[in-house]
Amino acid sequence: MKHKMSIIGFGGMAGWHYSQAQKIENLDIAGIWDIKEERRTYAAGKGIHVYAGLEDLLADPETDLVLIATPNDVHKPAAIAAMKAGKNVICEKPITLSSGDLQEMRDTAAETGRFLTVHQNRRWDEDYLTVKKILEEGKLGELFRLESRVQGSRGIPGDWRQEKEHGGGMILDWGVHLLDQLLLLFPGVPIRSVYGAETNVTNQLVDDGFRAEIVFENGVNALVEVGTSNFISLPRWYVLGTDGTAVIEDWEMNGKIVRASGVDEKDVTPVITAAGLTKTMAPRREDSIFTEELPVVESDVREFYYNVMAVLEGREESRIRLDEVARVMRLMEAISKSAKTGEVISFE
Amino acid sequence: MKHKMSIIGFGGMAGWHYSQAQKIENLDIAGIWDIKEERRTYAAGKGIHVYAGLEDLLADPETDLVLIATPNDVHKPAAIAAMKAGKNVICEKPITLSSGDLQEMRDTAAETGRFLTVHQNRRWDEDYLTVKKILEEGKLGELFRLESRVQGSRGIPGDWRQEKEHGGGMILDWGVHLLDQLLLLFPGVPIRSVYGAETNVTNQLVDDGFRAEIVFENGVNALVEVGTSNFISLPRWYVLGTDGTAVIEDWEMNGKIVRASGVDEKDVTPVITAAGLTKTMAPRREDSIFTEELPVVESDVREFYYNVMAVLEGREESRIRLDEVARVMRLMEAISKSAKTGEVISFE
Repeated sequence: MKHKMSIIGFGGMAGWHYSQAQKIENLDIAGIWDIKEERRTYAAGKGIHVYAGLEDLLADPETDLVLIATPNDVHKPAAIAAMKAGKNVICEKPITLSSGDLQEMRDTAAETGRFLTVHQNRRWDEDYLTVKKILEEGKLGELFRLESRVQGSRGIPGDWRQEKEHGGGMILDWGVHLLDQLLLLFPGVPIRSVYGAETNVTNQLVDDGFRAEIVFENGVNALVEVGTSNFISLPRWYVLGTDGTAVIEDWEMNGKIVRASGVDEKDVTPVITAAGLTKTMAPRREDSIFTEELPVVESDVREFYYNVMAVLEGREESRIRLDEVARVMRLMEAISKSAKTGEVISFE
Repeated sequence: MKHKMSIIGFGGMAGWHYSQAQKIENLDIAGIWDIKEERRTYAAGKGIHVYAGLEDLLADPETDLVLIATPNDVHKPAAIAAMKAGKNVICEKPITLSSGDLQEMRDTAAETGRFLTVHQNRRWDEDYLTVKKILEEGKLGELFRLESRVQGSRGIPGDWRQEKEHGGGMILDWGVHLLDQLLLLFPGVPIRSVYGAETNVTNQLVDDGFRAEIVFENGVNALVEVGTSNFISLPRWYVLGTDGTAVIEDWEMNGKIVRASGVDEKDVTPVITAAGLTKTMAPRREDSIFTEELPVVESDVREFYYNVMAVLEGREESRIRLDEVARVMRLMEAISKSAKTGEVISFE
């Protein structure tokens, strides 16, 4: 079954969706609309149909699917308008700015019977899927700590992402991915508490980075951290279990797993530093540990669109469940609240 | 002026002090006492005088200085007994188990007019001194984040350090160093709040690791973290300023500083990952940053003993101020309290 998608907002991410769509057999792009003339001109120059206006796009009977890739604050009104016009909707992330707004969108989806989803594309990132596999295989013994970081040094790219009213800030931009991944690593495990902090290094209007310490009911402590003033980055993932540690350095999938071999060490040689010595922190003897390569998982992000189309055809459930999306939204709100009050927030 | 020191408790750290003393001209070891016979035999075998008992040691009129290198819970009674016997006292760290106990020890020092100090030797560690220099030189612009970690994978060495009644656990063992260093990096700056978490991976009786998020009144957020189940270690220091980042990887002083060059970047090339693209997290163009070597500071830990002797001779103030030591003790108590309650603790 052939599907036709129209795109509202033709910036960077829409360009990415456009090129994804070329790789998917039964998905065509019907056309685009953008409020900026230069984006419309750019699209037309690529041979893409440009609608005369948003109403024109929504009225196109050929289109069964609308992708919304506008600034974040426009997701809700555009999605509601599209669903009311009979269209199914994919929103770019974050789906909207608050859990209350999301409920309104879900209500409209229920009223209209349309399918509403969000492009949580980083569920297909190989670093995340590799961590998931490591945990599922129990390679590290019992997990007690997981750290998920994304750090750059460019501040926030200079547009609406710097402004609160458009839904800017790193919690909504990157947090929404990293928190979504985190929660999927521990299905069904409630969160006990959240302690958050925001940074305002290059931008005072929105958070240009944040940290969240999240304590799960199963005892796992997790850190999610995003920085945009980090000229040297810490590893993308750092995962600690009772029997070993895994590190994924970067998106190129550099990293390793180091595990205890079970060989007992006697007579530890202390490490001597400039001003003291330590047995506790002495490196392991070679035969007491072993190093493994990461069990790298390959992925195909086209599965997102395949799933969307299968949902439209009644063949599959959506892989992005809106109750999961709502939980991430509430968690982001708890992080912001904790950062503002300086207090730990009880959650669930 | 010649000084003679007697040592109470002749374990690993006392051995380190003994060899330090060999390098200091006007300091002699008068003798040792240990409750364990094998330690006394070991000392005698090295040609060191072994007292007949603790009373005998304290009664030695030749000795003006006593080093206490016993399990942590013995520091207070031994120090008080030694001061009452007219001796000046160096305690191994932590000076004692609580701020209340420390006050008792300070009261005895005041009553007896004796000098009481603690071996905060890691004030002379080169990694710490190098971070201090980087901050003093303002190389990174305005500091906003500092992370100080020590991570090993051996659990807690198998002796009294695993037991609460002897003052075991990583907050008292390593925390006392890292927190002392941290507070000295921000002289005079009050702490607003503390959020702590302990781990019990290999030991249920005491903390075998901890994390503390410390917010200073000047806005700097600091992390102090100790782990003993980390088969791969994160860097010893990670320091973020508005203009650059410094990393010290390890005690071998591997690391670097990366700073913004001031060259503006246009047309950022996004990084493409398995499932998306990002401009925000794209690496910097080479000409927009520059990398510097660490300004490594060399140190001489003998300065600790030189200072002790200068204090005894009335030539210098003690470099280890007991009000600083008491503040670290209160901070450790706040971390434990936060870890226990799960709440943020207001401090100062």
